[in-house]
Amino acid sequence: MYCFLLRYFVCFFASRKIVYNLHLRTLIIPNTLILNFPVYKMLFLSLQQPAQSHESFIVSVHLLSIHFNGGIHMKYTVITGASSGIGYEAAVAFATRGKNLILVARREAELNNLKENIQSMNSDLDVVIKPTDLSDSGQVHALYESLKEYDIETFVNNAGFGNSATVAEQDVTKTEKMLRVNVEALTTLSTLYARDYADREGAQLINVSSDLGYRIVPNAVTYAATKFYVSAFTEGLAQELQDNGARLKVKILAPSMTETEFVKTAREIDDFSYSDNVQKFHTAKEMAQFMLELHDSEQIVGKVNSETYEFELMDPVFQYTSRK
Amino acid sequence: MYCFLLRYFVCFFASRKIVYNLHLRTLIIPNTLILNFPVYKMLFLSLQQPAQSHESFIVSVHLLSIHFNGGIHMKYTVITGASSGIGYEAAVAFATRGKNLILVARREAELNNLKENIQSMNSDLDVVIKPTDLSDSGQVHALYESLKEYDIETFVNNAGFGNSATVAEQDVTKTEKMLRVNVEALTTLSTLYARDYADREGAQLINVSSDLGYRIVPNAVTYAATKFYVSAFTEGLAQELQDNGARLKVKILAPSMTETEFVKTAREIDDFSYSDNVQKFHTAKEMAQFMLELHDSEQIVGKVNSETYEFELMDPVFQYTSRK
Repeated sequence: MYCFLLRYFVCFFASRKIVYNLHLRTLIIPNTLILNFPVYKMLFLSLQQPAQSHESFIVSVHLLSIHFNGGIHMKYTVITGASSGIGYEAAVAFATRGKNLILVARREAELNNLKENIQSMNSDLDVVIKPTDLSDSGQVHALYESLKEYDIETFVNNAGFGNSATVAEQDVTKTEKMLRVNVEALTTLSTLYARDYADREGAQLINVSSDLGYRIVPNAVTYAATKFYVSAFTEGLAQELQDNGARLKVKILAPSMTETEFVKTAREIDDFSYSDNVQKFHTAKEMAQFMLELHDSEQIVGKVNSETYEFELMDPVFQYTSRK
Repeated sequence: MYCFLLRYFVCFFASRKIVYNLHLRTLIIPNTLILNFPVYKMLFLSLQQPAQSHESFIVSVHLLSIHFNGGIHMKYTVITGASSGIGYEAAVAFATRGKNLILVARREAELNNLKENIQSMNSDLDVVIKPTDLSDSGQVHALYESLKEYDIETFVNNAGFGNSATVAEQDVTKTEKMLRVNVEALTTLSTLYARDYADREGAQLINVSSDLGYRIVPNAVTYAATKFYVSAFTEGLAQELQDNGARLKVKILAPSMTETEFVKTAREIDDFSYSDNVQKFHTAKEMAQFMLELHDSEQIVGKVNSETYEFELMDPVFQYTSRK
């Protein structure tokens, strides 16, 4: 019996890939992450019932290896609010870097179009779509639950929308929905991702705030306040993780005016021309490139200067009192 | 017919109280505020059907007058989170100024105790209790609906709680509840109050933020972010209303460490001694006095300096780009 087990372990160690996977697994299981249970079970069955022949065990190891290649070893970039605007272009930008994608938004048809576009660029990429209404707390939790089988290298909380009205005149239902998406869903997804990936080398969380996450303007006070929340929460999380020696990197992207569906949604109008109405703005494609720049940098904040419209990488803006 | 109507109007004008009330009513109806519909209707019925006798109309005017005395003309201070801590002491402080109170919190027994305490101090005061769980959006709306029959002079959004954990380790359910109370309920109640009272002379909204609404600390990142939201939202609302020439005044109270149930709730422990564990703190009674100071001042922000523990009245802190 021991002899059999020993032989099996020798088999494991002979295959570096499997050993590495097993090592990864022991790291990952405590964080309740990933694992295809049937294959996982199969491995243990083959350990428990000494196989009739050496070959039969090799077969199961082989299957396991395939599974790990298709599961754990494929890394994914999650992007919320991917059906249009900065999220859409960010998906294209990460795809250009060869990243597999998990795309989240309410509108399934738009997600499917984006998936087709990306796969026509690079058919090797795995693109998973997750139609989800992030204003619904139950759907937010179900989404994260469904992401547990993937290895998420980068998580981009980009979903969000604005409103154009004074506080005294704003639509309360729309405002509450905005709070659920901009604040609550972002917090829940950031918290769960930080919990699972705090110690993962190469993992990164990017939360999309706004230039209005650092200054307030009338007729967008509540929207600005949601983005102050995002900036403070994300700056705090980034520094708290650094204080605790975590490997997960956390960053804030703060666009200023960007050509997206933002103004249409905020003002509830059918059409809006940025070039006709706005002096300075970035295209969503430009913002997606800034996101990649931020991703690659060591800085925590990537912010568009609202006067010059330069993209600036910088240290956190708000006061943070470390307990160290 | 005209003769009858004329006589009725003479009756109105003879009674200054009623004229004043009618004047108030025309001011108030466009803002969809207050009015006991049965009495309101009765007045118009008596105008429409010339009464058989003069006396019968006098009776209805008399009733109307009683109603207005008990309704419109009594002014109230609403305080959320009134069952303990700063909210409790604020209720006592406003009562000492002779203010009628509407007290909101989850715990009905505590509200009843507070009501008894206040009425033993001053039996003339009307104290209304509204047991409400502000983490439940439906209850928040029902609460505001039930407040429409009162004339609210001052609205204090004090309800809120904290959490003591890193983001990666925080309880997601508790965090979401914190967002609903600290952010969503405060936003909904502020929005509805601003809508109804923007043009009311003497009306005031005080939102309780925190010293941590202006600086972040580890192990309270999400709580701090909710308070950044409160600070930005409330500073923005105050200035937006000023820009638009509104009469409603809006202010931010930002306590630092205060002896309340805060630490017990944040850390989920049964007991906590501030004097044994915290170098500097204010009592809830002191904070309630600071709230009155802020109420009486022309400044928008009243903040405890986290180093000196002095209470400082000041201009808004965050950048606000007026469109004026």
